[in-house]
Amino acid sequence: MTEPAGAPATTARRRVPARQGSLREHNLALVLRHVLDAAGPAGAAPPSRADVATATGLTRGAVSALVDLLIGARLVAELPPLATARAGRPAVPLVPAAGTVVGLGAEVNVDYIGVRALDLAGDVLAHRTTAGDFRHSDPAGVLAVLAGLVGEVRAELPDGARLAGMCLALPGLVDRVTGPLRLAPNLGWRDVDVVALLAAHPEVDGLSVRLANEANLAARAEARAGAAGQSFLYVSGEVGIGAAIVLDGEVFAGRHGWSGELGHTVVDQQGPRCTCGARGCLEQYAGKDALLRAAGRDVEEPVDALLDAAGAGDERAARALRSAGEALGVALANFVNLVDVETIVLGGIYGPLAPWLTDAVVGQLRSRVLAAAWEDARVAVAAGGAHAAMTGAAVVVLRAVADDPSAWLDAPV
Amino acid sequence: MTEPAGAPATTARRRVPARQGSLREHNLALVLRHVLDAAGPAGAAPPSRADVATATGLTRGAVSALVDLLIGARLVAELPPLATARAGRPAVPLVPAAGTVVGLGAEVNVDYIGVRALDLAGDVLAHRTTAGDFRHSDPAGVLAVLAGLVGEVRAELPDGARLAGMCLALPGLVDRVTGPLRLAPNLGWRDVDVVALLAAHPEVDGLSVRLANEANLAARAEARAGAAGQSFLYVSGEVGIGAAIVLDGEVFAGRHGWSGELGHTVVDQQGPRCTCGARGCLEQYAGKDALLRAAGRDVEEPVDALLDAAGAGDERAARALRSAGEALGVALANFVNLVDVETIVLGGIYGPLAPWLTDAVVGQLRSRVLAAAWEDARVAVAAGGAHAAMTGAAVVVLRAVADDPSAWLDAPV
Repeated sequence: MTEPAGAPATTARRRVPARQGSLREHNLALVLRHVLDAAGPAGAAPPSRADVATATGLTRGAVSALVDLLIGARLVAELPPLATARAGRPAVPLVPAAGTVVGLGAEVNVDYIGVRALDLAGDVLAHRTTAGDFRHSDPAGVLAVLAGLVGEVRAELPDGARLAGMCLALPGLVDRVTGPLRLAPNLGWRDVDVVALLAAHPEVDGLSVRLANEANLAARAEARAGAAGQSFLYVSGEVGIGAAIVLDGEVFAGRHGWSGELGHTVVDQQGPRCTCGARGCLEQYAGKDALLRAAGRDVEEPVDALLDAAGAGDERAARALRSAGEALGVALANFVNLVDVETIVLGGIYGPLAPWLTDAVVGQLRSRVLAAAWEDARVAVAAGGAHAAMTGAAVVVLRAVADDPSAWLDAPV
Repeated sequence: MTEPAGAPATTARRRVPARQGSLREHNLALVLRHVLDAAGPAGAAPPSRADVATATGLTRGAVSALVDLLIGARLVAELPPLATARAGRPAVPLVPAAGTVVGLGAEVNVDYIGVRALDLAGDVLAHRTTAGDFRHSDPAGVLAVLAGLVGEVRAELPDGARLAGMCLALPGLVDRVTGPLRLAPNLGWRDVDVVALLAAHPEVDGLSVRLANEANLAARAEARAGAAGQSFLYVSGEVGIGAAIVLDGEVFAGRHGWSGELGHTVVDQQGPRCTCGARGCLEQYAGKDALLRAAGRDVEEPVDALLDAAGAGDERAARALRSAGEALGVALANFVNLVDVETIVLGGIYGPLAPWLTDAVVGQLRSRVLAAAWEDARVAVAAGGAHAAMTGAAVVVLRAVADDPSAWLDAPV
């Protein structure tokens, strides 16, 4: 039920015939994983070949040969040697190669679309976003614009960079069994074959593309950042409100991949009609449009304007934020009563808005969560950065590379 | 985060020094597990020694020796040999021994307490329940009555039956890390050292006792019955409303063991005050007391009386059931939007009441679950039988025996 690390394979240029299950391929992935993890936010200093041997239990000779292959494939790079106190050759620190293998993370959301190129070193090599109003939009038209951004990002990549594929974040139900986007209520998209529409554009043609829910992908970026621990609920506040359940570092997407629709938690059964057709869903109280409307502002405005107004003493803005926080707190209390997680991570627009929301959220959690007297659920601000879903999408692509580096070698392992 | 199969060990009479990790102990457990599983609801015909060898990959000689040990320990028994078409010795079917090793499953709930003795063959050897009103009760007094029931059940066990321990189901937050009952709102119990109170009674003295949440235990009985598949939400309707999330056959209890508090999902923020202190919790709309009150009946009445009234055309009873079903449906829609499970299992009083509740529940799920257009969550009636939590509690005790059968041998393995 948990999404496996890098499934399904994104392919990439597979230059050599696959020989599944080979021990050497397995060990190659093991060594690469160790170098990548050490470079991650939770990692220690870059390891030497000897460090990798100690950590993996492989012989030093085997590690050296595998590292040479990874360097040859430009997946791993060496830093200048460090002088050591011991006699013998100085240790050469190993790091993920920069600017060589690239994952594209894209997103279509209700008020922006964008593409980001990430390399194995975790650097953003290129990034494009376009603001717009994609409510009730035409999928083909929006995806044509997205394909244009993909083309711009690709043009900006350094010479010799190799694309491993693209993952697209969407604000809705992506069926992880059968593939297509089922429903993105705020876009007004229903049963859309997004991959086929994208493949029609030369900028995307030939690139392997997969889809995933935007909150699930943002949660991956958050798990990678490491600040929220390994088990948490990630809340992605946009026009819609998505969420992702992370258990032991993996996104729990559920049987079809449809977990995390926090925005459709009922706040008031007689409340206003939601884009999903039901009444009184959380989105109608704490989604971006609802929030801006309650503050007497235009829904096209960025949340910064709302923040500025509240900071400047605009009582209507402050009241709108407080009441959105209360509605969000009720929905989160329901969740924590049902699924005992330690931390709630506020992402998307709730990141910058957190100073205005947190008190109300915590108040509801304290009064409604049965276990609150023994241990409060912690409320934290997302550390995955702006456009975390795009980062998470690119990470998914790169993780597939890390799981099968042998496909990137020039010669068979 | 998932509760492991039989953790923590319930002990039992450990006659031989433990030698952890021994291959022979491991294989002994493997063979016993195969015989037990084959006898379960989802199992096939009783296996012969040869069948066990084929299924486990052990040699026939090794299996025979291990089976002999299990028979000697009275954990496994032989049925009369079957004539076979092939030449050679006829196959001897192996089954779990009946009436030998016994797990006690107990429960304290708001309107009854009880104890049930289950053997490895799955038979109930003895069973006692007492109806009562345990709202705002004194833990020591209630547990004294329970100890008396334990004494009666023990007196009824067949000669030579050996007790493996006891597990007690409680309607509230049981801390699986630190041990005690944190809170059972409907009993009015808070931070009670239930194990110590029970151990003061001679009927329980010397017996290993563990605690668990009643819905989690009832869900185990349901998973064992097999009708709901391997991933579902089990709803336990009593005076309070508990739930248990079952993923891939295991109860997901969460970090502290506090998952599943469905009864405190908010139905109406301005609704009536709940025993937990918050307002408008589901229990105040669909719990047993709330339901009987809405139907104009006494809360001490059994639900059968309500069922009879509704069946006889009592409009107030029918209306109370419909509106409880709607509130339950709202809470379940919230859950299914957040956690993508396939099946909702109605247990406790919701089992017999299901014909009056299901339409309203399904209606809410259809209109509120975002993915309902592609696949409805199935609503099923619990198959775990009456007092499923007691059965689940006894199963937990017996599963610990199955995980370490070597403790039950007369001589070291």
